[in-house]
Amino acid sequence: MTLSIDADRLWSRLMALGEDGARPEGGVNRQALSAEEFAAWRRVIGWGAEAGMTPATDAAGNLFLTLAGADSDAAPVLIGSHIDSQPTGGLFDGTFGTLAALEAATVIAEAGTVPTRPIRVVAWMNEEGSRFAPGMMGSALFAGRRTEAATFAVRDADGVSVGEALAALHAAFADVPRLPLGFPVHAYVEPHIEQAEALEQAGNVIGVVTGIQGKVTFEVTVTGREQHAGTTPIGQRRDALQAFVRVAAGMQAAAMRVGEPVRFTIGRVEVTPNAPSVIPGRVVFRIDLRYPDNDTLGALAAELEAIAAREAEPCEVRTVRLVDEPSNGFDPALMAAIERAAERHDVPAQRLLSAAGHDARHIAPLAPSAMIFIPCRGGISHHPDEWAEKDHVAAGAAVLLDVVAEAAGVR
Amino acid sequence: MTLSIDADRLWSRLMALGEDGARPEGGVNRQALSAEEFAAWRRVIGWGAEAGMTPATDAAGNLFLTLAGADSDAAPVLIGSHIDSQPTGGLFDGTFGTLAALEAATVIAEAGTVPTRPIRVVAWMNEEGSRFAPGMMGSALFAGRRTEAATFAVRDADGVSVGEALAALHAAFADVPRLPLGFPVHAYVEPHIEQAEALEQAGNVIGVVTGIQGKVTFEVTVTGREQHAGTTPIGQRRDALQAFVRVAAGMQAAAMRVGEPVRFTIGRVEVTPNAPSVIPGRVVFRIDLRYPDNDTLGALAAELEAIAAREAEPCEVRTVRLVDEPSNGFDPALMAAIERAAERHDVPAQRLLSAAGHDARHIAPLAPSAMIFIPCRGGISHHPDEWAEKDHVAAGAAVLLDVVAEAAGVR
Repeated sequence: MTLSIDADRLWSRLMALGEDGARPEGGVNRQALSAEEFAAWRRVIGWGAEAGMTPATDAAGNLFLTLAGADSDAAPVLIGSHIDSQPTGGLFDGTFGTLAALEAATVIAEAGTVPTRPIRVVAWMNEEGSRFAPGMMGSALFAGRRTEAATFAVRDADGVSVGEALAALHAAFADVPRLPLGFPVHAYVEPHIEQAEALEQAGNVIGVVTGIQGKVTFEVTVTGREQHAGTTPIGQRRDALQAFVRVAAGMQAAAMRVGEPVRFTIGRVEVTPNAPSVIPGRVVFRIDLRYPDNDTLGALAAELEAIAAREAEPCEVRTVRLVDEPSNGFDPALMAAIERAAERHDVPAQRLLSAAGHDARHIAPLAPSAMIFIPCRGGISHHPDEWAEKDHVAAGAAVLLDVVAEAAGVR
Repeated sequence: MTLSIDADRLWSRLMALGEDGARPEGGVNRQALSAEEFAAWRRVIGWGAEAGMTPATDAAGNLFLTLAGADSDAAPVLIGSHIDSQPTGGLFDGTFGTLAALEAATVIAEAGTVPTRPIRVVAWMNEEGSRFAPGMMGSALFAGRRTEAATFAVRDADGVSVGEALAALHAAFADVPRLPLGFPVHAYVEPHIEQAEALEQAGNVIGVVTGIQGKVTFEVTVTGREQHAGTTPIGQRRDALQAFVRVAAGMQAAAMRVGEPVRFTIGRVEVTPNAPSVIPGRVVFRIDLRYPDNDTLGALAAELEAIAAREAEPCEVRTVRLVDEPSNGFDPALMAAIERAAERHDVPAQRLLSAAGHDARHIAPLAPSAMIFIPCRGGISHHPDEWAEKDHVAAGAAVLLDVVAEAAGVR
């Protein structure tokens, strides 16, 4: 049987989801476990119900919508991504993958056929890591990569813990049943915008993702002494901000020596007390470091730690690795299935490595996993200007539909 | 007649005022026009009333307590400082000066003598500049150094304007009458802790302040582009944080070339969106630059602006001077009176330049002005560990009492 996605429905749902957390200046602010994400949950659960899909959650606050299979004991085919956003996020990061998965499942449901295996759409909790660090929290908990105790204790800038925010989620969705963390998965496929320009520049529409590049994130705490800006002589200062500047400049120079394709970013800096006439007593900052080759990544990460220790003098410095993930590779059979589907739909495809991290990183050790990329304009993401073409969104969903239909045994 | 201050009363009032805005970790957070400062106002007005002093305010939210003089038309002797604090402030910065002034006026009132001139205690609005920038706002408005329109439009981090905060103050103290801004002043004397170590290291108790060193403060805005930390190649980044690091490192090097006694501090940094996986699109930071010699200060300030323009590439940069104050000199006759008083009380004194800015900077062009410094332990200020010895507090108040009694014509 021939199944076709409804490109208009998928597009209008993407636009509608952008209303939850819409910013007056454009884009969305729909951070993990916020009221805005709760609203998006309700919307997605409602769309799933229209197709006869059953909602569920788990101890990690992941959202699942299940289309029953003929063999209810069979491990489901899991498809989706996330629906949380950065504070200044766009309309496609995460939501494209979740809504393309919902579209594929909906088309199968509407066709009146029953797949052999259940098809389960997922929206992972806190992929972005902006409110609660680090990101990919829901998939990491699902996969047993982090402990519940440590994760639930993480607090946002207002002092709210993940545990408290999860309790609020579970209270708001009290009638949604729970699935166990780490239930068996037959296969996992995550569609996503590329967040870079390789597809656009090559004129390709489908990216067959071969793996995710390695990533190390650090939290660095520089501790000096709060003193009066107008009176404290140079030799008596322990200025945490100036120490931060030396550390950051040294790290940036080290990253530049490695060169492309290194990705070195200091995205978050908190200065205490952050008052104009007080020498800062403490600076806490985050480093996001990525590189495809694991040996190079490991050596550079160690060098950055050495630079922090050396350049922070006379301040004290403490460096903690929040994330330390090597590069991984996706399932060859699923990659081949994605390529066949792209060929059937006559859309140009290429293999590429994901520079960005995704939840698929955590699921890959549990089950055969893969990712489908579509282009995003100018490679811009994590920004209100983020944009994907409607034709590319439709092509990505059509390829996913073929892959999931094959994996779930739709006849 | 011989007048003596009550050292115990002054000390116990200093400690009591520390309860308004007391932080659980120690020190106080009693920022300008906050509920905590309102509470401190009530306390100080109450103490003034016990001595028969009349409270007043003005359009700038300064607090005045007046002890009537025999000649009610005579310009008052103005004495005091401020009672707002930094977010992590101590118990003495500002409050010592205001409460020493209250003590001096109280002793004169209790003696039953009527001075020729009124004696007016002042607590200037927003000396610290941490909630609303820049500081010394109340004295600047009083002296006509800033316009009400521009000052009232300044907003704090929560979006509350100075105008709104002043309306709340005036509503909370609706029965306190208003004095005009810039009323005639016969003389102004401001006691303060030194906030540096010169007195302590020399073993002196009284600092006869010869002037206040020049100060330039800048707000610098570096604008880049928000992009994805994991995918954006080096050559396509406009990373506002990395540009800030280059600018700050260049500025720090330029300040070090000038050397002691330069005071160069970046105390406040705001990163947007400040998310770990987003390349920062904007960094706004404040520079506090001070130097005693006006030519050197001017040349270095211009060099810092040039460094910002040069090093921010490929980001855009905008630099605004919020404060641009040359060094000034205090009134020789008042300085001599302070020295005589110190000699009478047998406390060792020395002349020194103030490295920190004070409200006296703005009043000096209006009336003969001077400052009395006392030591603070280790030079530490703008910090919960800030401390002054009870004996030094008493000595500073005793010297002030002599100076104000002479200036106001107490017989």
